[in-house]
Amino acid sequence: MKKIDKGIGKSALQLVLANSDEIEEAETHMKDSDFIYCLGKTGSMELQKVVSAIETAAKRNAVIDEELYREMHALYHAILEALEGVTRGQVSLGDVMRTVGLRFSVVRGRPYENEAEGEWIAVALYGTIGAPIRGLEHETTGLGINHI
Amino acid sequence: MKKIDKGIGKSALQLVLANSDEIEEAETHMKDSDFIYCLGKTGSMELQKVVSAIETAAKRNAVIDEELYREMHALYHAILEALEGVTRGQVSLGDVMRTVGLRFSVVRGRPYENEAEGEWIAVALYGTIGAPIRGLEHETTGLGINHI
Amino acid sequence: MKKIDKGIGKSALQLVLANSDEIEEAETHMKDSDFIYCLGKTGSMELQKVVSAIETAAKRNAVIDEELYREMHALYHAILEALEGVTRGQVSLGDVMRTVGLRFSVVRGRPYENEAEGEWIAVALYGTIGAPIRGLEHETTGLGINHI
Amino acid sequence: MKKIDKGIGKSALQLVLANSDEIEEAETHMKDSDFIYCLGKTGSMELQKVVSAIETAAKRNAVIDEELYREMHALYHAILEALEGVTRGQVSLGDVMRTVGLRFSVVRGRPYENEAEGEWIAVALYGTIGAPIRGLEHETTGLGINHI
Amino acid sequence: MKKIDKGIGKSALQLVLANSDEIEEAETHMKDSDFIYCLGKTGSMELQKVVSAIETAAKRNAVIDEELYREMHALYHAILEALEGVTRGQVSLGDVMRTVGLRFSVVRGRPYENEAEGEWIAVALYGTIGAPIRGLEHETTGLGINHI
Amino acid sequence: MKKIDKGIGKSALQLVLANSDEIEEAETHMKDSDFIYCLGKTGSMELQKVVSAIETAAKRNAVIDEELYREMHALYHAILEALEGVTRGQVSLGDVMRTVGLRFSVVRGRPYENEAEGEWIAVALYGTIGAPIRGLEHETTGLGINHI
Ligand SMILES: [Mg+2]
Ligand SMILES: [Mg+2]
Ligand SMILES: [Mg+2]
Ligand SMILES: [Mg+2]
Ligand SMILES: [Mg+2]
Ligand SMILES: [Mg+2]
Repeated sequence: MKKIDKGIGKSALQLVLANSDEIEEAETHMKDSDFIYCLGKTGSMELQKVVSAIETAAKRNAVIDEELYREMHALYHAILEALEGVTRGQVSLGDVMRTVGLRFSVVRGRPYENEAEGEWIAVALYGTIGAPIRGLEHETTGLGINHI
Repeated sequence: MKKIDKGIGKSALQLVLANSDEIEEAETHMKDSDFIYCLGKTGSMELQKVVSAIETAAKRNAVIDEELYREMHALYHAILEALEGVTRGQVSLGDVMRTVGLRFSVVRGRPYENEAEGEWIAVALYGTIGAPIRGLEHETTGLGINHI
Repeated sequence: MKKIDKGIGKSALQLVLANSDEIEEAETHMKDSDFIYCLGKTGSMELQKVVSAIETAAKRNAVIDEELYREMHALYHAILEALEGVTRGQVSLGDVMRTVGLRFSVVRGRPYENEAEGEWIAVALYGTIGAPIRGLEHETTGLGINHI
Repeated sequence: MKKIDKGIGKSALQLVLANSDEIEEAETHMKDSDFIYCLGKTGSMELQKVVSAIETAAKRNAVIDEELYREMHALYHAILEALEGVTRGQVSLGDVMRTVGLRFSVVRGRPYENEAEGEWIAVALYGTIGAPIRGLEHETTGLGINHI
Repeated sequence: MKKIDKGIGKSALQLVLANSDEIEEAETHMKDSDFIYCLGKTGSMELQKVVSAIETAAKRNAVIDEELYREMHALYHAILEALEGVTRGQVSLGDVMRTVGLRFSVVRGRPYENEAEGEWIAVALYGTIGAPIRGLEHETTGLGINHI
Repeated sequence: MKKIDKGIGKSALQLVLANSDEIEEAETHMKDSDFIYCLGKTGSMELQKVVSAIETAAKRNAVIDEELYREMHALYHAILEALEGVTRGQVSLGDVMRTVGLRFSVVRGRPYENEAEGEWIAVALYGTIGAPIRGLEHETTGLGINHI
C-alpha cells in the first residue's frame, strides 16, 4: 500500500484554480505524483462544445484511450457531473441565455491506498458563467469523479 | 476603482481546499483582503443539517446579518447552488443512501472593481460523498455565488 | 359549442390570489361558471403534508372521485406540476431547510369549446416559502393542469 | 415603516392575469404603489428568446440598470425561477417539442416594511404551453422573486 | 369486469424488447388483446425528432386522435416520462453530446378491471444511448404511462 | 472475441418482466450465459430502503464485492440511474406521497465483444408506483448501466 499524498479531486481542482504564478508549481507537483493529467480552456454558449473540448483534450493527451468505451464512458459521466456544479440546476447554457469561460483539468490515477480500487478519473472545471456580455458574469466550479 | 486580487469564489474554494499546512497562509491571505469569511465542518446524511450548519456559522461569525431576510436569502440560494455541485443531479443525501463530510467556507465582500456592484457572497464546499460506510466515498465540491 | 369565459388555470389562480375582500366575488364567479372547485390552506416543512392536504380537500369536496384511480392520477400529476412552480428546482422543503404557507385551489371542468376535450383539472398554489423563521420568506406560486 | 398594500409577487401575477378589461385598473393600481414595473408578451419555441425578451423589456423600461451586473444577476435568477413554474420539470421548450405564448411582468420595489430589506424583483409569467399546433395547449404560470 | 392478462406497460416494454425472432409472437399476442398499439424506430441527437417520431407514428396508426388535445396531451406526457428513463437526469441529447437509437411502442387500452378507469396509454422505449461514435454506447430504456 | 447473444440491459429487464411461468426459462437462460445476476423484490415509500435492498442483494449474492469501493460505486450509480426511470422527474417517493412495489435484478458481465471493455453492471427495476392505497398505481420501469 502506498501513501496517498493528496486526493485526485483536489489535485484536479488545484490545477484549474492555479493562476499564472502558481501553475508551474502545480504542474510540477502533478508530474511528481502518479497521476496523469491534461489541462485546457474552453468557452462557449454551447454545452456540446464544452463537453467536446474536454473529451478531445483527454484523448489527445492520452489521459484516456478513445478506443475503449469503458474509458470514454467513465470520462463522459465525470464531465456531466462536473457540469452539474457549473450549471447548478439545469445543465444548459445558451438555451437559458448564458455562456461560460472555463479552465478544465482531467486527472487519472489511483487515489486509494488499496491497489484493487484501480484507476479513477477526476474532471475539474473553474471559470465564469453569465450573460453573453463581458463582465456580467461570476465564478463557477464543478468536479466529477468516476472509477475507470 | 480598486484592484481585485483574486475572485471571491476562488478565495472561498482555496479556504476549503487548504490542508493543515496551508490553512494558516490561506487565512492570513483572507485577513489581508477586504473579504470577511467563516470556515467550518459539517457531516451528515441529512441535507437539512448541512444547510443549517452553514447558516449558523455565517450568522455566528457575523458574515451575514440574520435579522435581514435579504442577507439570509442571498446566503440560502448560494448554499443551494453549492449543494448542486456536491450532489450532482438530485439534491438529496440520506434519501438516496449517501452521506457527506464537508468543509465549508462563506466569504463576503466586493469582488468587482465597480463599487456600485456592491457586496456578494460565495459558499464553497469540499469533502467526500459516498455510502454510509467509511472509505466508500469520493471527493466532491460545490460553489454558489450570489449578490447580497 | 359553448363560449369559454375564462381559462381553468386563471380561475384557479384568481381563487388563491384573492384577498379577504375579493374572495366572495371570486367564489360567486366560480359558482356562476360550469367549473367545480375547492379552496384551502396548508403549511408545512413536509411536502407530503402539502400533497396530502390538497388531495384530501379535493376528495372531501367531491372535486374528484377518490374511487377512480384515473381521477386521482390526474390530480396527483397536477399537484406535482404546481409544486414545481412553488419549489423552482428541487421538489423538496424541509430537506433543504425551508417551509411553505400556501393557499390552494383545485378546479375541475370543461375549459375547451370542443365538448370532446372533456374534463380537465387545475391546481393552483400561492403563498410564501422561506426559512422556518417568521418573516424570512417571499411569495411563491405554481399551477398544474391535466386532463381528467 | 410603511404599510405594504400587496405583495410584489401578487402584483406581478395580477398584471399578467389581467384581461383587456382589467389591465387598465391593474396598471393604475401599480402606478399608485411604490413599485415600478414593465409588462410585455413573448412567444417562442426557443427559451433563449423568452429570457431575452424579458431582459430587454426590463432594461428598456428602466426597471433594472443594465450597467450593473448585480441587477442583471437578480433579474436573471428571477426569470429562471419563473421558468421553472412554466416548464414544470425540464427547463426546455423546442427541445421537447413544445412552445409557449406568454405575458410577462417585471416588478421592482420594496415589499417589506423594514426599509433595510431594500429592493426586490418579481418576474411573473402567464400564458399557454403546448405542441406547436394552435389549440393543442393549456395554461401555465411561473413566479420568480429575488432581492436586488 | 374482465380479466387483465398483462399490464399495459409490460406489453409496451415487451414489444420494444422483442428481437426479430420474438416480434411476431409479441405482435400476435397484442392483436389477441384488447390493446391497440404501434411500433417504430427513431434515432437522433435531437430530442425533438424523437418526440416527433413517436407522436407521428401514434397519429398515423390511429393509436391517438390528433384532433383531440386531451389525447395528444396524454401521449405527450407519457413520452416525456419515458424519456426521463432514457436520459436519466437531464432530458437532453445533443446538447450534452450524446445520441440515441431507439425502438418505441405506444399501447392504448383498458388496463384496469374496473371499466370506469377507462383508457390509458403506455410509451416504451428501448435501445442505445452514447457518444455520436458507433459502438461507444450502452442500452437504455424508459416507460411512461398516463390516463387518456 | 466471443459472440454476444443478448445485451446486459435486456437480460436484466427480461428478468424483472418475467411472470411466474416465464421466470424459470429466464433464469435458465441467464445461467447459460456468462452473466452473473441476482433477483429480488422491494417495496417502500422510502427510497433509501429501495437502494439498500438492491445493494444488499447484490452483495449477498456476490454479484459485487462489497470490499471494493469501485464496485459499490458502479452499482450505486447504476441504481440511481434506474431510479430516474422509475421516478421520472424527482428522485423521491414518500416525500411526494407515493410508494413503489418493485422487482429488481442486478446483472454483471462482459457485454461487449472486445474483452478489453471489461465488466459492466445493469440494474433493472419493474413494478408499480402510486398512492399509498392499493390499486391507485400504475407500472413503472428503470434501467441503469455502468462499467465496473
Ligand atoms: Mg459517484
Ligand atoms: Mg448566478
Ligand atoms: Mg401538460
Ligand atoms: Mg428565493
Ligand atoms: Mg403517473
Ligand atoms: Mg452511461
